[in-house]
Formats: sequence, structure tokens, C-alpha cells
Amino acid sequence: MIYITRKEQFSAAHKLYRPEWSDEKNLAVFGKCSNPNWHGHNYILEVTIKGEINAETGFLVNLSDLSRVVQRDVISKVDHKNLNLDVDFMSGKMVSTENLAVGIWQQMEAGISALGCKLHCVKLQETEKNVVEYYGE
Amino acid sequence: MIYITRKEQFSAAHKLYRPEWSDEKNLAVFGKCSNPNWHGHNYILEVTIKGEINAETGFLVNLSDLSRVVQRDVISKVDHKNLNLDVDFMSGKMVSTENLAVGIWQQMEAGISALGCKLHCVKLQETEKNVVEYYGE
Amino acid sequence: MIYITRKEQFSAAHKLYRPEWSDEKNLAVFGKCSNPNWHGHNYILEVTIKGEINAETGFLVNLSDLSRVVQRDVISKVDHKNLNLDVDFMSGKMVSTENLAVGIWQQMEAGISALGCKLHCVKLQETEKNVVEYYGE
Amino acid sequence: MIYITRKEQFSAAHKLYRPEWSDEKNLAVFGKCSNPNWHGHNYILEVTIKGEINAETGFLVNLSDLSRVVQRDVISKVDHKNLNLDVDFMSGKMVSTENLAVGIWQQMEAGISALGCKLHCVKLQETEKNVVEYYGE
Amino acid sequence: MIYITRKEQFSAAHKLYRPEWSDEKNLAVFGKCSNPNWHGHNYILEVTIKGEINAETGFLVNLSDLSRVVQRDVISKVDHKNLNLDVDFMSGKMVSTENLAVGIWQQMEAGISALGCKLHCVKLQETEKNVVEYYGE
Amino acid sequence: MIYITRKEQFSAAHKLYRPEWSDEKNLAVFGKCSNPNWHGHNYILEVTIKGEINAETGFLVNLSDLSRVVQRDVISKVDHKNLNLDVDFMSGKMVSTENLAVGIWQQMEAGISALGCKLHCVKLQETEKNVVEYYGE
Repeated sequence: MIYITRKEQFSAAHKLYRPEWSDEKNLAVFGKCSNPNWHGHNYILEVTIKGEINAETGFLVNLSDLSRVVQRDVISKVDHKNLNLDVDFMSGKMVSTENLAVGIWQQMEAGISALGCKLHCVKLQETEKNVVEYYGE
Repeated sequence: MIYITRKEQFSAAHKLYRPEWSDEKNLAVFGKCSNPNWHGHNYILEVTIKGEINAETGFLVNLSDLSRVVQRDVISKVDHKNLNLDVDFMSGKMVSTENLAVGIWQQMEAGISALGCKLHCVKLQETEKNVVEYYGE
Repeated sequence: MIYITRKEQFSAAHKLYRPEWSDEKNLAVFGKCSNPNWHGHNYILEVTIKGEINAETGFLVNLSDLSRVVQRDVISKVDHKNLNLDVDFMSGKMVSTENLAVGIWQQMEAGISALGCKLHCVKLQETEKNVVEYYGE
Repeated sequence: MIYITRKEQFSAAHKLYRPEWSDEKNLAVFGKCSNPNWHGHNYILEVTIKGEINAETGFLVNLSDLSRVVQRDVISKVDHKNLNLDVDFMSGKMVSTENLAVGIWQQMEAGISALGCKLHCVKLQETEKNVVEYYGE
Repeated sequence: MIYITRKEQFSAAHKLYRPEWSDEKNLAVFGKCSNPNWHGHNYILEVTIKGEINAETGFLVNLSDLSRVVQRDVISKVDHKNLNLDVDFMSGKMVSTENLAVGIWQQMEAGISALGCKLHCVKLQETEKNVVEYYGE
Repeated sequence: MIYITRKEQFSAAHKLYRPEWSDEKNLAVFGKCSNPNWHGHNYILEVTIKGEINAETGFLVNLSDLSRVVQRDVISKVDHKNLNLDVDFMSGKMVSTENLAVGIWQQMEAGISALGCKLHCVKLQETEKNVVEYYGE
């Protein structure tokens, strides 16, 4: 069993805000992340997959295939977007890093399986100080 | 003459968009940065100042004073903000990294002088691949 | 189950030295880390916690609460300190990175539980080349 | 149980190429990595070991011993080498990052055991975007 | 006057070797970099250009244009190549980081001028510890 | 004219403290850096030299010679030391990053000249947020 991690980046806007709450309550709970006019981040996404090494190529999967899946299923949908307004798989959810990592897992699980290996971990860095990991369970 | 650089970060939303242009022309010139619903970045700001070492303290300036000026004159105005909508010193300007670096210089020049030294360089990283430097001339 | 990691830094002095040994034996075992007049490091601390996502906030915990606990229980006690002389929870122990990671775990376990989640890992980097991880068992 | 990671680097040439295939098929499968005249990387190797803390020293192992084993069993054999032509333990294998990580594990397992602890993980970064991990099973 | 830096990476093989010298002399002068079977690196290239900000776009140049020139004039010629054998602009030269930086400057100067700005600096990192800068004079 | 930068690290203890001042005044001026029992850092030192490329080797200087000078004149004197107590060239001076950078310049200037090139810049990072540069004038 071998593990491979592919690292990609995307830049997006978001806010943490519950519309049924007052601005005051949003500020109390979400702090400056509740700014009504949005803010944004350079997110660093690390996708880890696992499986057996192919004897002929020496690869778990061809990295160009892995990269294509990550681009198609995630990066193309979130890069230079507003995560609250533009991203269908986050619709109706709080756009926290936690929920975003879970959403990215759900977007990618089938495409990774189709490559003949398994998704192991989605790791998502919002800032240098804050990182979330999700293992699908 | 000694140079000191202080590094800070802020997270903000922005877009590159001229309202008098069509969406098509904005997309052609500004690419995905023209997304009408905004996107965002973790900006890394490096402020370099220069001057003489104080014999008694061994300092060019007390770093807590420098940090206070950077927070007061820049970070508090741009962190977790929308650079197009919330930041007075960018009002009416294209919010490119170039213009933002020049705007930050103008915000900070007087405060740095008041510390008894000179502003030397404002360096602003938008993503890992793109960095702007401005030396005030 | 979701995992969140918070990254903090602190700067401290220490030495590796057993007073009942000669300087020669200390040098033989601990090398340059035994320098009697101390040396120091910028330590990078990564605290990983785990638990369930709160449906209302989208958070495992509010990061400002997590940050407050790390500051109160660890950073305020070790930053700009002498780990051998100034830190009560290292008293009477060799100040190796291993023992320091275990000590930090013990300092933080109750405070993390009080946030409604569990401490998963304490990761401590002494230099770019050396990192210790402790999982509480 | 405590985990320690030692980080080292080496610079080496390699190619991904099956001699029984045509250049066209090699290019189709391995892309630009099949360049007949080689290419190369700065590989970053992270070796993680695990075991109990020694009460007298506070160490899992003396890091100078760990560093010596990594140098002797791996770095001296791969640094500034051609991984296809110069490295006996990769002879007859495709020099993928996956196979190289497994080969490094096999090179180091006995030497780490001789230090009185266990090899836990070999992590190998080929580029900033691609990382492989192997846990020996 | 504003400065913009674009950062790119490429992976390549090379050796430092004078064929008219003996292997012994090559080893004495160039050390392990003289390995006859090549070695390689992940080179990090930073290209800095300078000029005036365009009032309409807020740009010095459109970064997609800058990126295209760097790809066309440099990256496509050196990435996943053997710098001694495959790169026409290094033909007949010692492939030191110094000479490579000068060669890259010469490759890029005209293309950067055609964008309406000036090449200011080529910075080339061979390993984390060694960096070369060339300013064209 | 070509510039080469060599990056090294050292770990050391220090404090900022004027013995003729009270503890209160030291705390007011130097903050937590005045802790009487010391604290410490991993310092990152970047030494930049400049000169002409040697046509035969392609080198400004042989990096092993540059590394040897940096080790001999600086690293061996400051690594795993107390900068206030153990380092002769800082004796009687405030051990600020500014003064340390100037002191390192003075230590290295002659040795770099003896290599046939010129010292251009000493850059010293105390923490990720604070960096000092000295150009010898």
C-alpha cells in the first residue's frame, strides 16, 4: 500500500454568515470572517490517495490523471470563485474550512475510484495557521 | 545604514473589473480575476525600513512600534475586507497588486517617518507565483 | 470526524545537560546541545484536535477558542523563556523535544476537552530537520 | 510511544523509460519524464521512526545516530547520482517516486532497528506538488 | 516604477565537467557535481521586470503575457531536459547556476522588452542553500 | 557582475538587557526579549557575495570554499552558543539582530575578499516576521 499526495492551490472569496441572525450575532460568533462584503484566501489543497503500485509503470496512478481529476472535480469549480455564491456543492451550507473539506471529498471520491485507487485524505489549508483534514469517516 | 523587514499577512476579497466595460471585455483583459462575485487571497506584506542603529538599544526602531504602525495604517484597513468596497485608499482605483502596493506605501510613509526612519520598500505577494515591489519612486 | 490543526510559534532557550555528569560526558552524549550557557530555538507547535462538525456554525470549534487555549496553556508559559529554568511543567525533566511534546500534551488535554473535542496530536519542530509527534499513548 | 522525523535532501537524475517500448509509447505513458537524456530533482526525504523515550537522555534515539544511519544507508548512495544507473538498490526497477520510497524503506529498516526503535514512515517529495508515503505494509 | 516577480520551477539534469580534464581533476574542482552519469535539481526561477503602471488596467503587464514569455523562452527549453545535452543556449558552456542565470537573461531580454517593460533580475535557486542573481550588467 | 547567496542556519540563546537599567526599564524597552534567564532562536543567515564569473569553472567562487568561510568565520562561533556570553565579536554590544548582522559582516569581510570576490549583503532572519539586512555602509 502506497500513498500519494497531490498539492494544488485555489483563490476564492467567502464569508461566514447566517442570514437569519443579526449582524451583531454574526460578528459575535464568526468575528471578522462575517464581513458582509466578503473576504478571501489562497487555499492550499492536498489530496492523498492510496493503493498498490503498478509493476509495469512503477506508479500508483499516473500523476497527470490524478491532476486532471483534481482540476475537473474541484479546482475548476472553486478557483477565482465566490464559495458562497458560485459553488453548487456548497450551496446551503456554512462555508467553513471544515465543510469545504467534506464537500471536496464528496466531489472527488468517485473520480478517484475510477482511477483504480482510493481517496485517503483531503487536507485544506485556509491560512498558514489553520489546516483541516478529513478522512471520509 | 541598516534595513529591517517586517512581514505580515492579511486575507481579503477583490476583483479586477471595469464597470464601463462589458463582461466579455473584462474577461478578455482580466481573465478569471474578473469574476463578478469576487475572489480573494492571503496577501503577504513585507515592509522594509532603513536608518541608523540606536547605540543604546541596538535597534533601528523598536519592532513593537513598527508592528503597531503596520497594523494601524494597513492591516486594520484591509484584513478580512473587500478591497474594492471597504478600503477607502483604494476607492476609484483598479485593485491590482501593483496599485495596492503603491496605496500601502502612501498609507505608511508618514507613520514610518514619525518613527525616525525611512520607508524603503513595500513588497506584496498575491500568490506564491506573483510578487510586486514598490520603492516609492 | 474532522481534524483541525492550529500552528503557533515560540522562541525559547534550553540545554541538554545532566548535572550529575561531567561536562565531558554531557558533551559526549548531548553534543553541542550541552553548551552550559544555553542555546535556543524558534519552536513550531502544531496542535491537532478532532471531533464532529457543529451544524449551525460549520465549525469543529471556534478557532478563536482553540487559539486562546493554546496561548493560555502553552505559549504564555514557554515563549521567550528558558525551558529548563522558567517552565514549571518541565521542572526536573530533560528538556528534549520528545519530553517537551509530551509535557505540552499534558498541559493541553483538559483545556481541549473543555472545548467539546479531543486532542489528537502534538507536533513540535525544533529545527527544520527535526520534528517530534506525540499522540497521547 | 513517540515519533521523530528527520528531514534530509538529495539531488539526483533519473528518467521513467521502459527500454522494450518505443520512444513514442514511453512518451505517451511517462510524458516528459521519459526524456532519454535524463532530468532530475531535489528530493526531500522525511524518515519517521517510533519507540519509547529513554528516561536518562529524554531521547527516542540520539539524532546524531539517526542522521548517521540515514546518511550511510540512503543519502550517500543517491545524492548527486543517477538513480537509474548508479544506485544498486533501484537496479532493474522503474525509478518512480513510489518505487524509490519502497527501496529507501528496505535500505533503512535494519539500520533503524539496530538503533532500538522502529521505522514508521518514509516520505519522499519529488516536487512541491507530488509526495509519496510508504509505511512498510 | 514598479517591480513584478514571476516565480516558476523546472526540473533538469546536469553535470559540471570539463572533458579535457581527467576524472580526478574534475572531482577535485567540481566535487560530487562532476558525477559522469549526471545528477539533477528542481530549479526555482524568479524573473523580475520593471516599468510603469498602466492606468487603465492597473497592471505593469498582464501576468498571463509575462507567464507566456517565461514558458516560451525558458521553461519549455529546460524543463525535464538535460541542461548539458538538450539546451541550445547552454551549448559549449559550463552548466553552473551562474552561467545558467546569464543564459536565461539573454533568452528573455527581447521577449520582456516586447511586452513594453524591462527585465530587471533573473534569480535562480539550485538548492535551498544556493541562489544566484543576475541584473544584466 | 553576478551575485551568489549562501543560506545557513544557527541556533543560539540571547537576551536584550542593559545591566545598568532596572528590570522594569528593561521590560518596558525590550519587552519579553529582556527575560533574565535568556530565550533563543533559529537564525537564518544569508550571505550574498558578488564578482565576475570564472570562465574555466563557470563559478563566481567554488561554493565549498564559500561554505567553508561562512562556517569558519561565523557558524562555528555562534551555533549552539549564548550570543551575549560566548561570542567574542558581540562582547560589550547589545545583541540585537541589527548589531548581530553588522558583527557578522565584520567577521566575514576579509575572508570573502580572500576568495577573490566582494561581500555584498548579510541578511539575518530572527523569526519568520523579522529580517535585517546590512550592506556594509
